[in-house]
This record gives sequence, structure tokens and C-alpha cells, in this order.
Amino acid sequence: MSKKEDPSGFITITGNIGIRDETPDFMCLSSDRPCAVAGVFTQSRFAGPSVEICRRHIEGGRAQAIVAISKNANVATGAEGLRNAELVVERVAEQLGVSPEDVLIASTGVIGRQYPMDRVLRFLGDLRSKQEPADFDRAARAIMTTDLVEKCARARVGNASVVGIAKGVGMMEPNMATLLTFFATDADIPAPRLDAMFRRVVDKTFNCLSVDTDTSTSDSAIILANGVAGPVDEGAFEEALLGVATRLVRTLARDGEGATKLLEVVVDGATDGRQAKRVAKAIVNSPLVKTAVHGADPNWGRVAMAIGKCSDETTIDPEKVTIRFSGMEVFPSAPDAKGLERLEELLRAEEVTIHVSLGLGPGESRVWGCDLSAEYVRINGEYST
Amino acid sequence: MSKKEDPSGFITITGNIGIRDETPDFMCLSSDRPCAVAGVFTQSRFAGPSVEICRRHIEGGRAQAIVAISKNANVATGAEGLRNAELVVERVAEQLGVSPEDVLIASTGVIGRQYPMDRVLRFLGDLRSKQEPADFDRAARAIMTTDLVEKCARARVGNASVVGIAKGVGMMEPNMATLLTFFATDADIPAPRLDAMFRRVVDKTFNCLSVDTDTSTSDSAIILANGVAGPVDEGAFEEALLGVATRLVRTLARDGEGATKLLEVVVDGATDGRQAKRVAKAIVNSPLVKTAVHGADPNWGRVAMAIGKCSDETTIDPEKVTIRFSGMEVFPSAPDAKGLERLEELLRAEEVTIHVSLGLGPGESRVWGCDLSAEYVRINGEYST
Repeated sequence: MSKKEDPSGFITITGNIGIRDETPDFMCLSSDRPCAVAGVFTQSRFAGPSVEICRRHIEGGRAQAIVAISKNANVATGAEGLRNAELVVERVAEQLGVSPEDVLIASTGVIGRQYPMDRVLRFLGDLRSKQEPADFDRAARAIMTTDLVEKCARARVGNASVVGIAKGVGMMEPNMATLLTFFATDADIPAPRLDAMFRRVVDKTFNCLSVDTDTSTSDSAIILANGVAGPVDEGAFEEALLGVATRLVRTLARDGEGATKLLEVVVDGATDGRQAKRVAKAIVNSPLVKTAVHGADPNWGRVAMAIGKCSDETTIDPEKVTIRFSGMEVFPSAPDAKGLERLEELLRAEEVTIHVSLGLGPGESRVWGCDLSAEYVRINGEYST
Repeated sequence: MSKKEDPSGFITITGNIGIRDETPDFMCLSSDRPCAVAGVFTQSRFAGPSVEICRRHIEGGRAQAIVAISKNANVATGAEGLRNAELVVERVAEQLGVSPEDVLIASTGVIGRQYPMDRVLRFLGDLRSKQEPADFDRAARAIMTTDLVEKCARARVGNASVVGIAKGVGMMEPNMATLLTFFATDADIPAPRLDAMFRRVVDKTFNCLSVDTDTSTSDSAIILANGVAGPVDEGAFEEALLGVATRLVRTLARDGEGATKLLEVVVDGATDGRQAKRVAKAIVNSPLVKTAVHGADPNWGRVAMAIGKCSDETTIDPEKVTIRFSGMEVFPSAPDAKGLERLEELLRAEEVTIHVSLGLGPGESRVWGCDLSAEYVRINGEYST
């Protein structure tokens, strides 16, 4: 679908506060009326004040605006950090003419530094004048930190549409939550059903994404539904939302810090979905699998190793396991020298699929990740300085 | 202590079978009489036939020799792999004149390839003639794969002595076990007490070591006690054994694949030892902490992130947490610009200690790891080819 069909009744504001440099570091998405809202947040024990405020403001199932500051996570900043976040929310609410309780806040970037409040408040002073008709692509760019490409995806459902934006490249092992990702729709869906639907979709998409096993302190996934376009077929809407979220997740994985390849791991034949996801995550997160994929090293035995790591999954029996790379079986029938050459070729592709069948039951799971490159090390060895 | 005081009654054999190249790939440690034995092995669901055979042969608490083949793990090799391992054990037993049930076997290297049995059997054919007085340094070199330095440590206890060798650089997240590490002593300690003591030592040392969260299919830690030097003070012996194992673990961490620094993480003030170890492992294994240490990036907030990742540890309260780097507090009193410079300097050292106090109780744990470098990626992207 085209941008012209983006959901009605939303505006966006983007700009540069000057948190770190001159690239955009401020984004605000706002509706012209109160919305049904659903959100899923990080499970980190070191969650920041932004997450704390969101959890509080989302309770009633109603919100109207989301403000996101990038390049500073405002985490591990104590009472001062909480006061600063509350002040941002108040000023935004004032400028937009909405209730502070209807404003959600997200923040991403370096941990352990206070916001430069003088610059933040100066920027917020004339926020009203910066409003523009919703431009979700620009909004997606404004929440980037070390992302190389903006992540934006759209779908149409009946008279309504849904659009999602996301950011995230490292510190990415969402756990019942995700990085920053915001969805807007003009469909009319009551908050409780929106919440149930959103959790199902997040569980199948953002919670199946891993870049480096590190869980952010700031992960937030939020959807606003302002109802402007009226009711929709909710089954069709959930399917569209799942499609949009899946596209975002694949883009997120492909743009993982230093990533050169998308790695998709499918595990089926597990005793249940939980076991399938556990094994799939062990594979997609294994540094040795990730480096082998990066170097196109046909070292398929590392997948066996990664399965074996799940030592608490006592039902796993190597004699029932099958391992395939992009369709090619490597276990139990191990490739000969020619097969290894073919495997090396498959590993040179930009998308690599590892498919494991455990031969135990009907459980299955699909997860996404990326390869591990020297570039990941370079980026993260010199991030804050 | 000097090599001359190495335990009596042992011989070693090292050599090149030609598994992969011309570097040593065979090691055998044997006693002139049956020994009390204790062993701890990988918990991998994909453990290989070597581990299977060891578990069987160790049951009675008696063994006499350990044979180790490197450069090929003999894992995920099915019934043929098991037959091959049994054949190696039989031939070694025959040549040494010991019972096959008294021979233990370990193997390390690429997964999913059969041993080149023609070369293996040719090599084993005149094993007898290759025996030499025990040379543990040479034995340590013969079990190396991508290790850069051999790992060997010694201690004297009364009239007896204990020596340990180890190998391991990647695929290193021992779990109730370790990489390949073998200990020999001429102290006389009955198998049941040797076993209890060895498990306590392994738990405080090898199980506190992490290079990359990947658990090997072949991890084996074995101690042989031949009793030649008679009984010893067992408390003193355990202390000496702990010292030897700790030195090996620090060397292993420092020589982690691509590592340039030793990373030591101490967590205290936890509700119990289990929680302390859980948090310490989350920190030492965090790719973002490891890359920051590598690049001497004073991004201390990533330690807060890694603590926060332990989301099931619901008693952790950020307000009670203190974080220090090599003695310098960074949380809750965050460093200013000058402090960050000092932190950067501390991070340039070859050993970095991260000390976290949770402020909850008496539990503590010390774990070891290393930084994550571009070299790790290079080594592991082109290992098998």
C-alpha cells in the first residue's frame, strides 16, 4: 500500500534536540482524539523511568500520544532521571493540548547519563509549530540510533490501515517485549481485544528476534488505535498486523549491528512450542553458529552443539534429530566433500535458513537473527565515546 | 614447584596422527598402577561417544589411563563413531597392557566427521615405543586445538604433588563440567572422597568460566590419583587442587579465542550463591559488556543492562545495587567526564574486574571470561575449512 493510505487522524513531529549530534533524536506520534492502546515492555530489572511511566499511563487502555527520545536511554539515572522523564511528558502534553496521563514515553541510547535538560526543554518549547501530517518514514528515521536503515511497514484492512515503525540493532533479545516499535491504526478496536491481539502478535514476531542475547532496559512495543475509520474484521486485522510486524522483524534482524545476513531458524517436531522456541533461540544465539554463517564455514556440527546446549530438554534424542541448511540435509546423513562445497555455497546467500526437526511431537517455532561479524565488535567497542 | 616434582608413577605419550595437519593431535596419560578416578562431563544432549564411554568406565571409581584425540570431536557420528572410539580404547589398552575398562577417552575438534581410522590405527600400532617419562607440558600442547598457549599448573602437597593440564578457547560455557582438563596426582585418596572434592573444585573453577556461552559436546574433567606417594592431608590437597584449577581457568579465559583481556566478575551481596553466579554469568557473557571491555569504551551502563537481563531474579532492586570497575564506583554515583577518562584507562589494562554488590544477602560468586574481539569472529568464521 502507499503512504497516502496511512491511518487517518495522526500527526508526527520529528527533530533534533542535540542529544549527541545533529541527526534526528526526537519523535512524537499523536492522534487527534484519544486511542485504545496496548503495550508490551521490557522485563529488565533495570527498566528505566520511561518504561515505568508507560506501564502506569497504559493501565486504563487509553492514550493519545507517544514521545520517543533517541541517543540517550535515560536508564540508571535515579530520581533525577524519573523527574526529567515526567517533565518531558508534561511539556509534550501541554503543547499538544492532551492530558499528561495520555502521553507515553520511550527512550533509547546510552545508559547512565542524564538528559541534557536545557536543550530538551528549549526544543519542547515550540513543539506545536513542528507538527506535520503523519510522516511515518520520517518518524522511523527519527528513532534510529546505530540503525543503518529505517524500519517502516504498512497494511490495509477494509477501510482502515495499520502502520508500524521500529528501531533496534543491538542489545536485542526481547523477552515478552521488544525494542522500540510503535504501531498506529485508524481501525476501531476496543482496548482489551487490541491488547490480547497485540500480545499474540508480539510473541510470534518481536519475541522471536535475537541479535546478541542482550536485553534492553528500554524495550517498548506500543499500538495506538484511534477508531477514525470505524470497526474492521478483527481476524483480518490481526493477520495484517502480524504481516506488518513480521516484515519489521525481518528488517530488524537483517540490520542487526554489523550483520551481513538474515538468519532464520525453524524448529519443528518438538514436544511443544516452548521447547521448539528454546532450541531455536539456542541456535540463533550461538556465537559459533553465527560466526560460521558469517564466514560461510560449512561447520554444520555447531548446530548439533547448540541443540545439545539445551541440557534441561531431556526429551531431545540425537537419534531422532534432523538438521537441514536452506533445504539441504546435513544430519544424520552427513555431507561428503562435495556436499560441504554445496553447503558453503548456500551459506554465501544473504538469507540462511536452519531447519531442525526434533522428531518428538507437534511443537514448532520460527525465530530470526543475524550473523556475527567483526563489524559488530567494532561498533560496540567504540559506541559511547 | 618444578617439573621434577611432578607426580610419580605416570607416563605420557604424545604425537601426530595427522587428523588435520602436522601439529600434535594425540595424548595419552597413563599410570603404572590402577588409580582412584573422578570425572565431570558435559551436560550436552549431543554428547559424543567419548563422553559416553568415560561415564561407563568411571563408574567403579577406578581407571589407569586417559587417551585424548584433538582436531576431531567424534560427535554426531552415530554408531560408526561409537565403534571407532571403542576401537581406540581397545588398542590403547592392549598396547599399555591395561584393561580396556580402565581406559578413558576424550576428543575435541570439529563435530560431525568420522576419525580417519586408517591413520589412527597405524599410529596406535606401535604406541608402546612412544612412551616417555611423564611430560605434562608436552601433554598440554598435544591437546590444543586453536589454543595459543598450553595450559599446565602444578602444586605440591606434603610428599605428593598434583598437576593439571587443560585445553579450550571457544565453545566454552561449561555447565557442571568443563573443556578437556586432566589432573594427575600421586596422593592416595579413595575414589569417593576424590570425587566429592573434585566436584567442589570444578564447581568453583571450570564452572565459573565462560568464553562464548557455547557448551561443548565433549567437555571432560578427569583426575587420576595413583597413590604412589601415600596419603596426604586432604584439606591441604583440596586447597592445592583449587589453586591449580584456578590458575588453569585464568589461563583458559585469558587465551579465549581472540581474547586480549582477562575479565573477572565478582558478584556479592546476593540472596544466595546461585543468584550471585546467575548475575555474574549474565555480565561476563554479555556481548555488549565484552565488546566495551575490548574497546576500552567506558560504557558502564551495559553492566546495569546485563544485571537487568536476569528478569527472573525478582529480588534484584536497582536502588540497592553498586557497580565498580577495578575498584572504581560507577553506580549509583556515576562518573563525570574526568571519571569516564579514568575508567577508560582502567579498561585498557590486561585484566579488568567488574564488581557488583546487590545489597541483598551473603551470596557471592567469582567468574572468569574474556573480551570479544574481531579476531574471535575471524577465527570462528573459517575454522573447519
